[in-house]
Amino acid sequence: MDAIERLSKLFERFPGIGPRQAQRFVQFLLRSSPAIRREMMESIRELGSDVHQCPSCQRYHTGTKGLCDICSSSSRDSSLLAIVASDADLAALERSHTFRGLYFVVGGLLSLASDRMSGLRVKELLDSLPERIENGLKEAILAFPANPEGDSTAIRIREELTEKAVGVKVSSLGRGLSTGSELEYADPETLKNALENRH
Amino acid sequence: MDAIERLSKLFERFPGIGPRQAQRFVQFLLRSSPAIRREMMESIRELGSDVHQCPSCQRYHTGTKGLCDICSSSSRDSSLLAIVASDADLAALERSHTFRGLYFVVGGLLSLASDRMSGLRVKELLDSLPERIENGLKEAILAFPANPEGDSTAIRIREELTEKAVGVKVSSLGRGLSTGSELEYADPETLKNALENRH
Amino acid sequence: MDAIERLSKLFERFPGIGPRQAQRFVQFLLRSSPAIRREMMESIRELGSDVHQCPSCQRYHTGTKGLCDICSSSSRDSSLLAIVASDADLAALERSHTFRGLYFVVGGLLSLASDRMSGLRVKELLDSLPERIENGLKEAILAFPANPEGDSTAIRIREELTEKAVGVKVSSLGRGLSTGSELEYADPETLKNALENRH
Amino acid sequence: MDAIERLSKLFERFPGIGPRQAQRFVQFLLRSSPAIRREMMESIRELGSDVHQCPSCQRYHTGTKGLCDICSSSSRDSSLLAIVASDADLAALERSHTFRGLYFVVGGLLSLASDRMSGLRVKELLDSLPERIENGLKEAILAFPANPEGDSTAIRIREELTEKAVGVKVSSLGRGLSTGSELEYADPETLKNALENRH
Repeated sequence: MDAIERLSKLFERFPGIGPRQAQRFVQFLLRSSPAIRREMMESIRELGSDVHQCPSCQRYHTGTKGLCDICSSSSRDSSLLAIVASDADLAALERSHTFRGLYFVVGGLLSLASDRMSGLRVKELLDSLPERIENGLKEAILAFPANPEGDSTAIRIREELTEKAVGVKVSSLGRGLSTGSELEYADPETLKNALENRH
Repeated sequence: MDAIERLSKLFERFPGIGPRQAQRFVQFLLRSSPAIRREMMESIRELGSDVHQCPSCQRYHTGTKGLCDICSSSSRDSSLLAIVASDADLAALERSHTFRGLYFVVGGLLSLASDRMSGLRVKELLDSLPERIENGLKEAILAFPANPEGDSTAIRIREELTEKAVGVKVSSLGRGLSTGSELEYADPETLKNALENRH
Repeated sequence: MDAIERLSKLFERFPGIGPRQAQRFVQFLLRSSPAIRREMMESIRELGSDVHQCPSCQRYHTGTKGLCDICSSSSRDSSLLAIVASDADLAALERSHTFRGLYFVVGGLLSLASDRMSGLRVKELLDSLPERIENGLKEAILAFPANPEGDSTAIRIREELTEKAVGVKVSSLGRGLSTGSELEYADPETLKNALENRH
Repeated sequence: MDAIERLSKLFERFPGIGPRQAQRFVQFLLRSSPAIRREMMESIRELGSDVHQCPSCQRYHTGTKGLCDICSSSSRDSSLLAIVASDADLAALERSHTFRGLYFVVGGLLSLASDRMSGLRVKELLDSLPERIENGLKEAILAFPANPEGDSTAIRIREELTEKAVGVKVSSLGRGLSTGSELEYADPETLKNALENRH
């Protein structure tokens, strides 16, 4: 396998990329200047060397080794902990500018096929609880997507928290109409939630 | 304009139908048996003769002239009134089997362009309030879609109700993640609502 | 079944229309004026009374009973006959303003599942040949879509014509890149045709 | 800008990739093993060192430095030259297994905005003609996409070839129905071509 095919096969492993687009990526890099290719190589190398995983929330960051800027900030509210599936979900909540608490990234969702928690950082979450409670944790918010995988993950983590984090309230994100929802096309579950959560 | 063109132009006025599909509809009717065309004509004629508008909720129904089967049912909870935009939205709520109160169909949404309530049955709604309150009305639920038109309509009707329906609580459908929502792709408004309405 | 449901079921039989859109059509007619509904009924009635099938090309038309305006025109070239699947395909060729010959609508395509010609007006086509040849027919163009059903239909009709229309050239529409085609995404068959038919 | 942002910005320059997907790519690489990142860096480095541009057809290849395997093959027909826009278009023609001649990759299409040929290897093409004619070139096939950019490029290159490659026939790919085309939805131009190129 030559360099073109090898790189193409690597791009095919990227999320959402098929053989055709992988080949376009390689052609793009072939036509790019050597400087672009060098910057690309360097950035990938730095991902390994300069990017650290925050020992508290577990997200990847490029600050100094150790706590990330959210976990080390004195202005965040340590009584609230949002438990999210991924760095991308954490970033989405940050972009909405409505949450001022801390985060924990479990690193995925329970697979409905396997129903196993392996790969998820549940032990790390539970181990971090005594210190978090000491720092004032009052509520853990299960901030998972509104789909079967998200629901199963929330149920399992809720069980663990109820047992291990006595005194900490466990909540879930509100369900109802999301922006743009039309009643006519909404599923019965969403309408039920929207009615129950009316205000 | 011949019959083919005339019918094609009529089909073009149907919601979501362009010239091409309108022509396909006409071709379909041309190839259909005379019996199908006759049934079609008769059904349209019956729409005008056998379908009545319920004088209470304003929806179209084919029961005996007078109140529809929801408004005349003794098992519905007259303390709750869901105010909806259309018959289709009413039908969606009925399909979800979670609402046991009564309905009022205003017949549309406030157009953002005109900002006028003309065409909406707001006067009819307000006129019906004294009798509804006498019958035990406690809460009016503004059940409009989660889009700008729905929001504007809700604001205007809430103003009218607050003034004219003293003592009746006015609520709105809950907002948050709807079924299938992923945090990563949710808009900030939806995430804000989901956090605020956590439970 | 009441008038609303009955009409909704009829609309569901229209090409490309599901239950939800069928219901929207009915709601549209309910909210329409009685005049619109009356025009609708009348147009459908006229489809049966004022629309005739041309005895030569077999398409539906609303001219005086008898030959359609294409078949009765003295300015069309009777040496060319385009054999098409449907009235819609005939209309598409007319819109392109490039064909000045006559047409014959066979009324469908060979179904790959059944492989039967039943329902197609092949006998009518063959029966019309002696008169067409007498009127100068030199070439029959099989103008079918470039898909498996179109290809099978063309093969079968070509066999019949070769046997029954001796002396008449039988041709097919040219294959190659269609407007907007990109080589990168073109299928091998299209590229093969484009290369063979280069000019 | 940190490594995560830097790499994300680089991915945004890839064809068809927006900010959201660029971030997913970075997250994918962050979660990947160091071995994958290393293979990625190495493949990119090899693109620069092991990939050569063929001095004859101009495409990128990983054979030994010099002519690519198509241009150096004795079984290709040097009387035919397909002039294509990109390596991807060349690859598409090769996949169709119908062309046995040689290629020249001009490296893009005329931009309709600028109408300039800059960036296209037209001079290289013209310079290569004397040797190609000496080797038996009889026909140059303009194999460009069937869109306005492709058509403009073909017109300009045809002008140059007519002047500089006297005695060489210049042809274009055949136009007509491409696989899957339905007459009803075909544009007038395609129908016109399909009728003219009937066979």
